[in-house]
Amino acid sequence: MFNSFGKIFTVTTFGESHGPAIGVVVDGVPAGFAFDLPFIQSELDRRKPGQSSLTTSRKEEDQIEVLSGVFENKTTGAPVAMLVRNIDAKSGDYNEIREILRPGHADLTYFLKYGTRDPNGGGRASARETLARVAAGALAKSILNQWKKIQILAWVSEVYTIKAIVNPAEVTLEMVESNPVRCPDPIAATKIETLITETKKEGNSLGGIITCQTLNVPPGLGEPIYGKLQAWLGFAMLGINAVKGIEFGDGFEAAKRKGSENNDLIYWENDTFHTRTNHSGGILGGISTGMPVIFNVAFKPTSTIALEQESVTPEGQEVNFAGTGRHDPCVLPRAVPIVESMTAIVLLDLLLQHQSRQH
Amino acid sequence: MFNSFGKIFTVTTFGESHGPAIGVVVDGVPAGFAFDLPFIQSELDRRKPGQSSLTTSRKEEDQIEVLSGVFENKTTGAPVAMLVRNIDAKSGDYNEIREILRPGHADLTYFLKYGTRDPNGGGRASARETLARVAAGALAKSILNQWKKIQILAWVSEVYTIKAIVNPAEVTLEMVESNPVRCPDPIAATKIETLITETKKEGNSLGGIITCQTLNVPPGLGEPIYGKLQAWLGFAMLGINAVKGIEFGDGFEAAKRKGSENNDLIYWENDTFHTRTNHSGGILGGISTGMPVIFNVAFKPTSTIALEQESVTPEGQEVNFAGTGRHDPCVLPRAVPIVESMTAIVLLDLLLQHQSRQH
Amino acid sequence: MFNSFGKIFTVTTFGESHGPAIGVVVDGVPAGFAFDLPFIQSELDRRKPGQSSLTTSRKEEDQIEVLSGVFENKTTGAPVAMLVRNIDAKSGDYNEIREILRPGHADLTYFLKYGTRDPNGGGRASARETLARVAAGALAKSILNQWKKIQILAWVSEVYTIKAIVNPAEVTLEMVESNPVRCPDPIAATKIETLITETKKEGNSLGGIITCQTLNVPPGLGEPIYGKLQAWLGFAMLGINAVKGIEFGDGFEAAKRKGSENNDLIYWENDTFHTRTNHSGGILGGISTGMPVIFNVAFKPTSTIALEQESVTPEGQEVNFAGTGRHDPCVLPRAVPIVESMTAIVLLDLLLQHQSRQH
Amino acid sequence: MFNSFGKIFTVTTFGESHGPAIGVVVDGVPAGFAFDLPFIQSELDRRKPGQSSLTTSRKEEDQIEVLSGVFENKTTGAPVAMLVRNIDAKSGDYNEIREILRPGHADLTYFLKYGTRDPNGGGRASARETLARVAAGALAKSILNQWKKIQILAWVSEVYTIKAIVNPAEVTLEMVESNPVRCPDPIAATKIETLITETKKEGNSLGGIITCQTLNVPPGLGEPIYGKLQAWLGFAMLGINAVKGIEFGDGFEAAKRKGSENNDLIYWENDTFHTRTNHSGGILGGISTGMPVIFNVAFKPTSTIALEQESVTPEGQEVNFAGTGRHDPCVLPRAVPIVESMTAIVLLDLLLQHQSRQH
Repeated sequence: MFNSFGKIFTVTTFGESHGPAIGVVVDGVPAGFAFDLPFIQSELDRRKPGQSSLTTSRKEEDQIEVLSGVFENKTTGAPVAMLVRNIDAKSGDYNEIREILRPGHADLTYFLKYGTRDPNGGGRASARETLARVAAGALAKSILNQWKKIQILAWVSEVYTIKAIVNPAEVTLEMVESNPVRCPDPIAATKIETLITETKKEGNSLGGIITCQTLNVPPGLGEPIYGKLQAWLGFAMLGINAVKGIEFGDGFEAAKRKGSENNDLIYWENDTFHTRTNHSGGILGGISTGMPVIFNVAFKPTSTIALEQESVTPEGQEVNFAGTGRHDPCVLPRAVPIVESMTAIVLLDLLLQHQSRQH
Repeated sequence: MFNSFGKIFTVTTFGESHGPAIGVVVDGVPAGFAFDLPFIQSELDRRKPGQSSLTTSRKEEDQIEVLSGVFENKTTGAPVAMLVRNIDAKSGDYNEIREILRPGHADLTYFLKYGTRDPNGGGRASARETLARVAAGALAKSILNQWKKIQILAWVSEVYTIKAIVNPAEVTLEMVESNPVRCPDPIAATKIETLITETKKEGNSLGGIITCQTLNVPPGLGEPIYGKLQAWLGFAMLGINAVKGIEFGDGFEAAKRKGSENNDLIYWENDTFHTRTNHSGGILGGISTGMPVIFNVAFKPTSTIALEQESVTPEGQEVNFAGTGRHDPCVLPRAVPIVESMTAIVLLDLLLQHQSRQH
Repeated sequence: MFNSFGKIFTVTTFGESHGPAIGVVVDGVPAGFAFDLPFIQSELDRRKPGQSSLTTSRKEEDQIEVLSGVFENKTTGAPVAMLVRNIDAKSGDYNEIREILRPGHADLTYFLKYGTRDPNGGGRASARETLARVAAGALAKSILNQWKKIQILAWVSEVYTIKAIVNPAEVTLEMVESNPVRCPDPIAATKIETLITETKKEGNSLGGIITCQTLNVPPGLGEPIYGKLQAWLGFAMLGINAVKGIEFGDGFEAAKRKGSENNDLIYWENDTFHTRTNHSGGILGGISTGMPVIFNVAFKPTSTIALEQESVTPEGQEVNFAGTGRHDPCVLPRAVPIVESMTAIVLLDLLLQHQSRQH
Repeated sequence: MFNSFGKIFTVTTFGESHGPAIGVVVDGVPAGFAFDLPFIQSELDRRKPGQSSLTTSRKEEDQIEVLSGVFENKTTGAPVAMLVRNIDAKSGDYNEIREILRPGHADLTYFLKYGTRDPNGGGRASARETLARVAAGALAKSILNQWKKIQILAWVSEVYTIKAIVNPAEVTLEMVESNPVRCPDPIAATKIETLITETKKEGNSLGGIITCQTLNVPPGLGEPIYGKLQAWLGFAMLGINAVKGIEFGDGFEAAKRKGSENNDLIYWENDTFHTRTNHSGGILGGISTGMPVIFNVAFKPTSTIALEQESVTPEGQEVNFAGTGRHDPCVLPRAVPIVESMTAIVLLDLLLQHQSRQH
């Protein structure tokens, strides 16, 4: 219940940053789809640490092992369990922080909630848990693609004050993957890369925005009252470490508009409905229209920085603290596949929910 | 599953805009709390149509009837069902729109999803359903207050381009309720009131932002991975009609910061932990810190406008359409109690979730 | 969560024996099916009190009101809420028992669980709540029949020591409804009728067994591990007041067999699989085979009897107690539609669960 | 959803008989309890194959590995994942049955449900999956014992026509474990042991009954309408492979009684309520009374037998089939810890559900 996501396509994760392994059980997998293990591994590679000079220096190959649910390379309908062993988990790194509640981290709140916490690398609160979501999300992505040709693509659209200038309709996976920032605007990408490198040297960190767009989402996904498409996507994104906001279509800009400026006018062409604009981000009344679903996700800057900060021990004593553990100066580039994965999980779950009542 | 919200404190709603009634079943209500019916009715009065010249002219007294779960003015632990009869449901009003898929509305997507739809006043998609959330939310508010002295207060902080200038720490319910806009900055309130009146005359509508703040939330609420406090609040807010975005604490602004500018430094005082700033909006690692929980919700402008717009019939024929039904030119003032109600439902549900594992 | 049943086709009930009303919200209803209100009312009539001399003398017409989810006599996909007002709720009847924890009743356990209880007619624990299940079940039955021609039929097969001798394959609704006992063996029915009448005069009560059989259940319903067809049916039946056991197919008899005597041999005929016997009751590995699903449900005798019994007050004082409230000397005849209803709810829910993953 | 059990204490299992591993993720574990790994292993040892001459000859050490959720030998509140590698999985054994739908097995129904199946050792339908339940159940048992001193004890009370004669109040774990049958009546145990040995030689199999009793269950567990204690226990037991029935307290016998013979009279002694008899099996109105909770579970004889039986291929061709795979002639002795485990899971889940609303 607490570590599971989804109603029918259900993803349950386990594991701590410095425990033996991180893993996931994916339930509700429809039977008979090709199980594309190399694709799942390649998605994990997009998230793994050490992939470029912009990321943490923790060395993890994040090799996935499949434990169940697949027979002769096809899904069987049984739950798919997948496991990644932690290799480079140096508990020693964290000995010094066992007695510190780091600012911006979950140390304080886990301690208050449970009366205990696993301090090594943040324990369960570590973003390392998100590799399990990427494994599950890659499976969802693959099924969505085989079944409905749904495409999900995210990219870094803003870091600190640098904004990518792109037309979402023209962004491709190749553009996104052409640089370590995962920003499809090459000029912005270069500036961001430089900025991250400099900020890392300063011992500081950076926030930013990821944009995610999905194509070929069939109309009708999302449940009208509480299970709206944007509500599920919001639930998914706001469950990702460091996320502080989400907006759909024109989002907060729409709040500054009049109705006549914001309504998307509907027309009929080629045997289907379209809208002339897509201010709504492909969602009306909580249900997909068939237009691209598009949204922005805001990430705060990484909490761990090398600059010295005031903090406290669990007993309330004041201490100064400067992060020396391995961390990303900017999580955005590695968060791109996480955003895509959670989107895939939501869409497949809503597709199955929708389908349950078709006759 | 589809029309229910919450895991333990579970709210299930039913009813259509022009059907016989709107109602709600609230399950998981802890036994032994005072049941404050006048308070529930007063919260419904804050949402009801026709309360000022800024709202729709639909006349509904929204008188609540309690059907179960209360014995001698106390909750018994049994589900509390509450019902409001629809009085002023003029189906005739909507005869003309039976054959139109209105821009910005759920007409298109319900039709695509179900192959059918109840066109009268939007049927199930109507924001009239939210009265059921306010009834349930008022019950949750009352229990949170009796149990933990939790305070929830929302207000209109922005409409179109007019922004309230307030210090959240100083906003009171009296300030919010002192004007029909529900904006605690009296200067902004007057400007907004004028703007809404003019926009209504133009036959147009306006979007805006509601800010919500809760005090006395005990630390420890929220579940660490998928059930984060901000994820549940996001799920709740993005399930409200016309909402297009949400941000916590400094939200999208935090994306433009460095870590050293954004971390909230922790200190110990009066036997408890505090943070010097509250950029995070009272949430770390998805769990409440004990500081005020604060977030902003973006509403798009009302989709129904009197200006003529291009549209289509369910058969795909082009038509022009101008709204003549009763509607709010700006939903924000009436949405304030809805935002508060969903916040209360989330907090009580997370409190019960948290409590389930205490020993 | 606590007062809801089902994962996709979800039934939530509310109301107390002597409160204003009993009601139900049915969510996950597939859109586009005919809504057969007269059939729902006729099912409630099979359960209502006072229908024969064998039942309680409480007078309730149990007239159903539909509040939502239906447009032009078809289901819309929105939740269907239905309500029955309590008319003949004489709280006075129960004044004397406010201070008694009646043997065999939920008085003791509600008091221990909640620290409070609604004593009037048993409050929420009253079997009057089951009318809400019959309303929801009748809707499920009607949809199952329209969609898949599924037939559900239950009957009284045993009361006290009198056993009906019937061939399940030959039992019809007409046979069941031909006598007030709802026993398709006319000889047993007459004996049981006499026995119930005599037992009522004695101030005593009787237990018995209901058999339920469903035809045309498509193969594949039920989820393999925890959501087995027999597990869901067991969960449903063991949630009915006074039920103390359930067995599928040959049930407890199968425990006294060898494998060679109990296996149902499979063969192929008319383009489908069959089994030569049906010891398993139409279920293998938790999933329907396509053969009739058949099971027995054991009911204890009604707890309320007119004979004097030893009991206690909530304070622990000993008292003698003899029931004078209105009650059924044998609940079996009225429980037949309840068993059928819960079966229908389970089957439709599992059909929707199964369907969610078809492609 | 499909492979998970429980609402708050949630058990999700994965793995196939002949896949790489069987595992479980246990969520909702309260933080701060001692994690007793040797106890969990000892419970698995009670279930493991090859423990006596009465069981299958498959050789599995069933060594448990803990992957998460434990820090310094205490639970942290994070999910506990546990894994057992399959060692002695000879797929070759089953090559011959790839083309046969074995009588009494899930082969037919998995094939009809999914259009595919993993034939090796029954794949996901194999009772080998239950080791994951025993691991989770052992954790639940340990927590229940640390927290509330709850004791759960099951035993074989009947095999074929041989019945144990015991007083449940006097049965101890030592008595149960004193013989390979797990029957606390030594005379019956000897007879059953002989019978199983002979039946194995015949190539046949045997059914039977397991009785389970729990002590120190606090009053108040179970939710009144659909989540009754007996409903959850029934759901749990009817989800165990080969189970065909369950009864609580006097169960089916109660159906043959009058109310005056069946009511348990309540009295007050030593500051608490008791009942003079316990026909109800410790449950009233679906909620525990504080008396021992006791129930019987009926198991059909093992479906795999060495005697030749008529069967079919997935294409519908008739074939004869005689089991040669390794299997138990009688599953009862190894099922005892499974019944105890599922009971523990239900009780802990209901304890957490109950606790969520205490104030």
